[in-house]
Amino acid sequence: MNELPLWQEVQKDLQEVEAELLRQVDAPDPVLSQAARHLVQAGGKRLRPAFAILAARCCGAPLERVLPLAVALEMIHMATLVHDDVIDASPLRRGRPTVWARWGQELSLHTGDYLFARSLLLVAAYDDPRIPSILAATSIQMVQGELHQLADAFDLDVSVRDYLKRIYRKTALLIAASCRLGAIAAGAGEAAIRHLDHYGRNLGVAFQITDDVLDMVADPERLGKPIGSDLRQGVITLPAIYALRACPKKHKLVCLLAKRDKTAAEIQEVIELIKNCGGIEYALALAERYLDRARQHALFLPKGPARDTLKGLTYYVRTRGI
Amino acid sequence: MNELPLWQEVQKDLQEVEAELLRQVDAPDPVLSQAARHLVQAGGKRLRPAFAILAARCCGAPLERVLPLAVALEMIHMATLVHDDVIDASPLRRGRPTVWARWGQELSLHTGDYLFARSLLLVAAYDDPRIPSILAATSIQMVQGELHQLADAFDLDVSVRDYLKRIYRKTALLIAASCRLGAIAAGAGEAAIRHLDHYGRNLGVAFQITDDVLDMVADPERLGKPIGSDLRQGVITLPAIYALRACPKKHKLVCLLAKRDKTAAEIQEVIELIKNCGGIEYALALAERYLDRARQHALFLPKGPARDTLKGLTYYVRTRGI
Repeated sequence: MNELPLWQEVQKDLQEVEAELLRQVDAPDPVLSQAARHLVQAGGKRLRPAFAILAARCCGAPLERVLPLAVALEMIHMATLVHDDVIDASPLRRGRPTVWARWGQELSLHTGDYLFARSLLLVAAYDDPRIPSILAATSIQMVQGELHQLADAFDLDVSVRDYLKRIYRKTALLIAASCRLGAIAAGAGEAAIRHLDHYGRNLGVAFQITDDVLDMVADPERLGKPIGSDLRQGVITLPAIYALRACPKKHKLVCLLAKRDKTAAEIQEVIELIKNCGGIEYALALAERYLDRARQHALFLPKGPARDTLKGLTYYVRTRGI
Repeated sequence: MNELPLWQEVQKDLQEVEAELLRQVDAPDPVLSQAARHLVQAGGKRLRPAFAILAARCCGAPLERVLPLAVALEMIHMATLVHDDVIDASPLRRGRPTVWARWGQELSLHTGDYLFARSLLLVAAYDDPRIPSILAATSIQMVQGELHQLADAFDLDVSVRDYLKRIYRKTALLIAASCRLGAIAAGAGEAAIRHLDHYGRNLGVAFQITDDVLDMVADPERLGKPIGSDLRQGVITLPAIYALRACPKKHKLVCLLAKRDKTAAEIQEVIELIKNCGGIEYALALAERYLDRARQHALFLPKGPARDTLKGLTYYVRTRGI
């Protein structure tokens, strides 16, 4: 992502986020420091800090005002990733061994708890009590989203509506919170806060839809992990939900999707069935509708390079890695 | 604990804590609600809420002022317990199946994260930013304490000083934070806050020492789990540290303590060796010194039934279950 020209607007700010992240995860315990540093150095798009910074800049605030928040948002995101890796027993993330694979369950669990607590300590220093409140409330909803995903696993009767509700909590909420909190940290008025919140919600939903598409069609090397991991875990995503209605070999698809331990060939077969009936195009078209809405909300924000970048990011979400 | 007359001072308040806890853990997700309710109904001494309430009452505040904090403290404690049960793969806690045993790893992990986030949401509503700050900072230190315990496992060269530092973080800090935050929520002055903090630190250390003693000498039925669980996990506690110096069969003890998979007979043998050389008495005498110090700090608090109860609790810690 960093190579995109539109990203240059926050490139320098994100370098400061990176330095502050490394400072923040430093702990007296050497193993904890190492694990947390490993997580930071595994990289990532730093989407949430970028949105918080762009939102704050859009509302006229300097980086210093939003930096602790930006770092806290990334640490909360990292905390969920490290716990997810325990749950999914994932050996790799972004092409590197996970904390779980390298240091085991106990340390992964503690690292997640540690990062979460650190992020809340960081935002507790803001004078606006809405900031820790919104962050804690968002975390609560994210857990509920994860549990929905667990409850819906291998449930082939899941609707588009259920799916959207699940990804809204799982992903869109933290992106929306990043935008909204960036505006709050900047001391923005209610209207800007609301438009940034809606921008984030819509963009977040589109981001997760395309993420779910990438899990079926991406180059595994670029993805940093094998494709089809959702299918293996029984997570029924939008292309599959569409294919369950549109696929001419519906019964074949049902049997394959419901199967618990799919072989690599079966995963490939499911993906082909989904692709052939237009499941990917359907999902991307729906993502595009959400991106359109995000763009509409961006129009109401104060003019300037930060707004242009926020608008530009909606095009990036559609095209990344596909 | 609830049967003790001294506890009557907070008995009615703790009933309100109980009701509020059940209200707070209620979630839209039925499994999450069930698991969280299971945790609440498994009971517990509610020490942390009791300390927060007594500290607040001691400083002249009504229950309403401290209730959200009291509930948040118990939820943070429950969050650490549910994550610990995953790490230790514990089938039982307080004689009941753990969330881990009943609902598995994924739900246990999410339940812990959920309770932690809910507790921070609750305290974010206080107008004093010290309250969320201290709670987040305490959580960070607690994780570090857990990691120290992990790093020290099966390390027979651990000193009394290492041990005290570890239990200080693992247990005493949250009890001290309960006392201190209760005073802060009550709007108390610096002196009362400081004495309550020191009271909590000293009592918390003594509490963990006696807890570690109970793991060797308690009636398993009253303990709600088999004795010797620390020894099985290689957690070297104070009676063992003392025995490693004082036991006439030192080499025998070293070999047994260092052994990874101890049989029930070996656990019993270790306990006998520790008992016979005075390890239990040594630990209890050290606990008594900490309780003395806690009592000294209680003397500086405003007179009244809350202070009497805080003082009385120091006697309870010494005698419970032994």
